[in-house]
Amino acid sequence: MTRIPAGRVLRSHYPYQQKVIARYADVDPLWHINNVAMAQYFEDTRISMLRMLLDMERMATLDGDRVLLAHQSIDYLREGKYPGSLDVGAAVLKVGNSSVTIGMGLFQDEACIALSEAVLVRANAAGPCSWSLDERTLIDDPVWRLQTA
Amino acid sequence: MTRIPAGRVLRSHYPYQQKVIARYADVDPLWHINNVAMAQYFEDTRISMLRMLLDMERMATLDGDRVLLAHQSIDYLREGKYPGSLDVGAAVLKVGNSSVTIGMGLFQDEACIALSEAVLVRANAAGPCSWSLDERTLIDDPVWRLQTA
Amino acid sequence: MTRIPAGRVLRSHYPYQQKVIARYADVDPLWHINNVAMAQYFEDTRISMLRMLLDMERMATLDGDRVLLAHQSIDYLREGKYPGSLDVGAAVLKVGNSSVTIGMGLFQDEACIALSEAVLVRANAAGPCSWSLDERTLIDDPVWRLQTA
Amino acid sequence: MTRIPAGRVLRSHYPYQQKVIARYADVDPLWHINNVAMAQYFEDTRISMLRMLLDMERMATLDGDRVLLAHQSIDYLREGKYPGSLDVGAAVLKVGNSSVTIGMGLFQDEACIALSEAVLVRANAAGPCSWSLDERTLIDDPVWRLQTA
Repeated sequence: MTRIPAGRVLRSHYPYQQKVIARYADVDPLWHINNVAMAQYFEDTRISMLRMLLDMERMATLDGDRVLLAHQSIDYLREGKYPGSLDVGAAVLKVGNSSVTIGMGLFQDEACIALSEAVLVRANAAGPCSWSLDERTLIDDPVWRLQTA
Repeated sequence: MTRIPAGRVLRSHYPYQQKVIARYADVDPLWHINNVAMAQYFEDTRISMLRMLLDMERMATLDGDRVLLAHQSIDYLREGKYPGSLDVGAAVLKVGNSSVTIGMGLFQDEACIALSEAVLVRANAAGPCSWSLDERTLIDDPVWRLQTA
Repeated sequence: MTRIPAGRVLRSHYPYQQKVIARYADVDPLWHINNVAMAQYFEDTRISMLRMLLDMERMATLDGDRVLLAHQSIDYLREGKYPGSLDVGAAVLKVGNSSVTIGMGLFQDEACIALSEAVLVRANAAGPCSWSLDERTLIDDPVWRLQTA
Repeated sequence: MTRIPAGRVLRSHYPYQQKVIARYADVDPLWHINNVAMAQYFEDTRISMLRMLLDMERMATLDGDRVLLAHQSIDYLREGKYPGSLDVGAAVLKVGNSSVTIGMGLFQDEACIALSEAVLVRANAAGPCSWSLDERTLIDDPVWRLQTA
């Protein structure tokens, strides 16, 4: 990310919110929250949001239907403190024919300490496939977009 | 542990309490909370409790003064569910000349899903050493024992 | 473990051997290999050994058939160094009607840095069950016992 | 990453190489190597390479001198298999006044399963700072560039 996009560093702009409690296991030798731990926080939020948006439990029973992570980027803006809790905000940034881009922000004491973008691809047993009409209606709802207005 | 000790499976018996939020990264291929993740929950609780009881931040500035984990055992009683949060309770079970035994219970929806005992040893740069009088007063306080009465 | 059993601290005594490469993520704020990372090493070895001994892939296709971890204890004897590789040795210590006890040792530069015992229980959809005759023959073979003679 | 850059998907093009052994703890509920585990592999490789290139142990003794991760992106190309080992290749892609971009590839059975770019920033106690002349000579050596010729 060359420039931090406007509207991404305020927690209240994200329609989906999740709390994280930092663990000693997340702390690196410099006593900051390790960057791989932050990737774990973003993973958990992204999966929770998709499980809520789409009917992931039904999907898991279908043969090969799933949503795959194709790309993830993280910008580390500030160091995270332990002990402490954090908040993750998530929003749908873009919906493609067979993909969705989720934007997330990680916050501690309301300061944005990291930003992430994840591109997920809809697939079935044969490989990438289009969203069904139902799925697209669910994920392309304006209510899940960044609330910057 | 051949027999589950009386008084260890009720959350209210533990004087020190901590909350854990399960993460997708904690889930194993059978969709239960993985046993190594539970070891992480116990580690975080044990360290938080000791940091509160002893002045661990002061200790970290001394040359080689620390508390080492010598032994840990975990009994797995039930499967843990994701998504969900859990509670960990901790109590001092025994204080030795240079060691302390911490007993912990992991609870989900008030059911005890795992029990753990950790033996920690006080050490300085030369190896294991006795607790100072101050330290012993802090950790041997009845308030931190299992409250089974 | 109150006393370290004879024959457990020599790597050559273990019939099953596995290599581990330490990762930066395994390092704790004191720059030692973290004790939860060691639990991960033991988990990986125990599962690899059981997958080899029993036909775990066949078992996974049966409805509810599995081997559950009931108990794990770890004794931490020395600090582990990063960067570096480690060796884990494993042996069957005891076979019960529906359980098996695996003993493991973690070695770095041939020095034993931790010992672990894991008790696993055979279960099907209804709960704990006896080993089948075939399974018992496979796990109760003297070739998998500690080779201390 | 919109297009996979030529020369990034062949292991032999990377001057720095490191082996990883997958662990059961790296496996997700779909029995693939989890994407956060892959982030761990890239982290370990990046840190090993920098520790070799720069004199990181000397740097750690200076007050506040360090190299911070500012950005990391990962493209997931194929699923990783467990059990198994993997290879990570790393190369310096770009050197800035106070930053360095490391490009990495993750390989299993010589197939590229993920690509990563990490931007690291040189900092001292006051914040980001320029590389010293010595440091720049070490990291800007053509020997650490992608060997695509």
